Amino acid sequence: MKDYSDKYNSYKTEINNLIKSLVIKTEPRNLYDPIRYILSGGGKRLRPVLTLFSCEAFGSDYRNALYAATAIELLHNFTLVHDDIMDNADTRRGKITIHKKWDRDTAILAGDHLIALSLKALNMTSSNNMKRIYDYYINSLSEVCEGQIYDKAFEKDRNVSINDYIMMCRKKTSKLLESCTAIGGIIAEASDNEIKSAEIYAENLGLAFQMQDDLLDIMGEEENFGKKTGGDIREGKKTFLLLKAIELAGDDKDRNVLISVINKDDVISEDNFVNLVREIYLKYGVINEANKVVKEYTEKAVSALNNIKTKEGKELLYWFSEIILNRSH
Amino acid sequence: MKDYSDKYNSYKTEINNLIKSLVIKTEPRNLYDPIRYILSGGGKRLRPVLTLFSCEAFGSDYRNALYAATAIELLHNFTLVHDDIMDNADTRRGKITIHKKWDRDTAILAGDHLIALSLKALNMTSSNNMKRIYDYYINSLSEVCEGQIYDKAFEKDRNVSINDYIMMCRKKTSKLLESCTAIGGIIAEASDNEIKSAEIYAENLGLAFQMQDDLLDIMGEEENFGKKTGGDIREGKKTFLLLKAIELAGDDKDRNVLISVINKDDVISEDNFVNLVREIYLKYGVINEANKVVKEYTEKAVSALNNIKTKEGKELLYWFSEIILNRSH
Repeated sequence: MKDYSDKYNSYKTEINNLIKSLVIKTEPRNLYDPIRYILSGGGKRLRPVLTLFSCEAFGSDYRNALYAATAIELLHNFTLVHDDIMDNADTRRGKITIHKKWDRDTAILAGDHLIALSLKALNMTSSNNMKRIYDYYINSLSEVCEGQIYDKAFEKDRNVSINDYIMMCRKKTSKLLESCTAIGGIIAEASDNEIKSAEIYAENLGLAFQMQDDLLDIMGEEENFGKKTGGDIREGKKTFLLLKAIELAGDDKDRNVLISVINKDDVISEDNFVNLVREIYLKYGVINEANKVVKEYTEKAVSALNNIKTKEGKELLYWFSEIILNRSH
Repeated sequence: MKDYSDKYNSYKTEINNLIKSLVIKTEPRNLYDPIRYILSGGGKRLRPVLTLFSCEAFGSDYRNALYAATAIELLHNFTLVHDDIMDNADTRRGKITIHKKWDRDTAILAGDHLIALSLKALNMTSSNNMKRIYDYYINSLSEVCEGQIYDKAFEKDRNVSINDYIMMCRKKTSKLLESCTAIGGIIAEASDNEIKSAEIYAENLGLAFQMQDDLLDIMGEEENFGKKTGGDIREGKKTFLLLKAIELAGDDKDRNVLISVINKDDVISEDNFVNLVREIYLKYGVINEANKVVKEYTEKAVSALNNIKTKEGKELLYWFSEIILNRSH
């Protein structure tokens, strides 16, 4: 397989430069300082690069999608800032979160203003189908809010099902990725059928990505994953892994351990608890099960690429799915 | 002067119906319930009616601006929900605020989602100048965030000047009103010169409106004003009135009373304190001064209407400035 790392990195650089050029104001400092802070905090820029790749895969110059791609990255950053308030997160990409470094109100307004910056970038896009581009963009914003509401509600809900969890991932993760590929496609004037395929690719890629992320959280090596393993368990997150394990756990003792995660009992913060849960996951084959599901979603994503006309286009988006899932980037 | 109350009320009804028809989803309930709650809480719908009036004043059918007008009202409601969190407000339009009735996270997400709903309405607008309409809309969102950041910063800043205060009012109040008239004008395909005039009208109307609001807060009768008088003083708000009074107060004793508002000393919550400040305002002619400033802004606003071609158009926007300032509506 051809290696597109150079392309990825060069597009990433262009996106970062465009972001910098869009945030030129400095006053009021307590609005623009935190905005610059979050935007300079790195990040893989997966979403804007996917937008550019999609535009290119459908036969157009990637540069036609640069503003739209940047808009999506800025929208993604808005969700990070507001989610971090709600999750009371201390760090983001290794840096202190805005609401901790400044305060809650600053983080609310920085998030709000990131939407304005994002829209500013989107409105600089040249396309004959701006109405349709906006429709996708607006729908993502709407779905991502719904996803976050479900995510917060599930924290308190003891009856979350695997289907609920996947529905939430669709809204929180897939929808914005679908907009990336769809908007890239619309700018490239791809056919409706092609755009639909690109959305199916992104939807399943998003689900595979989220599931992979959950797996890494418990099985990953801390060094590669970049954060402490077992975080989801310590937070009592109702992931596919946990819900599947509860479904499969026959032994009452194992079941009680898992239920204590759902109930957020004090025990879940104990040193050895994450290892205990990991062993249960392995014992009942939950890790294999999850790997199978990741594979299924990935296959669905990749098979949707058959509708892309050019070999080069197919390869480019295939490569993207590989790097996003291997996290080698 | 012709009375346009019936027109106002009928447009207001159309806006309310359109809002209802745009919020049809019910799940997740903890997102759509609070959204429906804030949107059904009444409100004068000044901004959307101004948008429709402006469209009509420039010779187009008001119905062409209905979606855009609704978008602006929804955007305004987003600002209310997030501002109420930051101000820790208990009530809004006589009802418990979202963050009190539900919780902080729900209010953040309801506000965020109101932007999505607002954009959805805006994107249903039919115009050959959508890019320009979006530019105005996006700029309002950006300015209103800046205004709120200044407003919060001024709460802690002891060196706020009258100019600072007016700059903040321009961002928090005028900018969105400017978008109302400009977007109404763009939809009606008014000339650049006409749109510029409509913006000047709205900018000054906004400043007059804000100043009038400050006056009513201290001089208004509680029954008509709908809230307790003296709220600004009790909150230590650095309004034009307070800042002007400090400028004019010669007597050391009077000055100390005013400075205690700036410093938010405990004394400002005492029963008779508001009366004390009111007397100082009257003694140094601050109330007259503020009335003069309201009159000046109003005159600037009204004289900008000379650029509107039709007598009917001029009258309509003139009537609007009268009712918005008399608060008789």
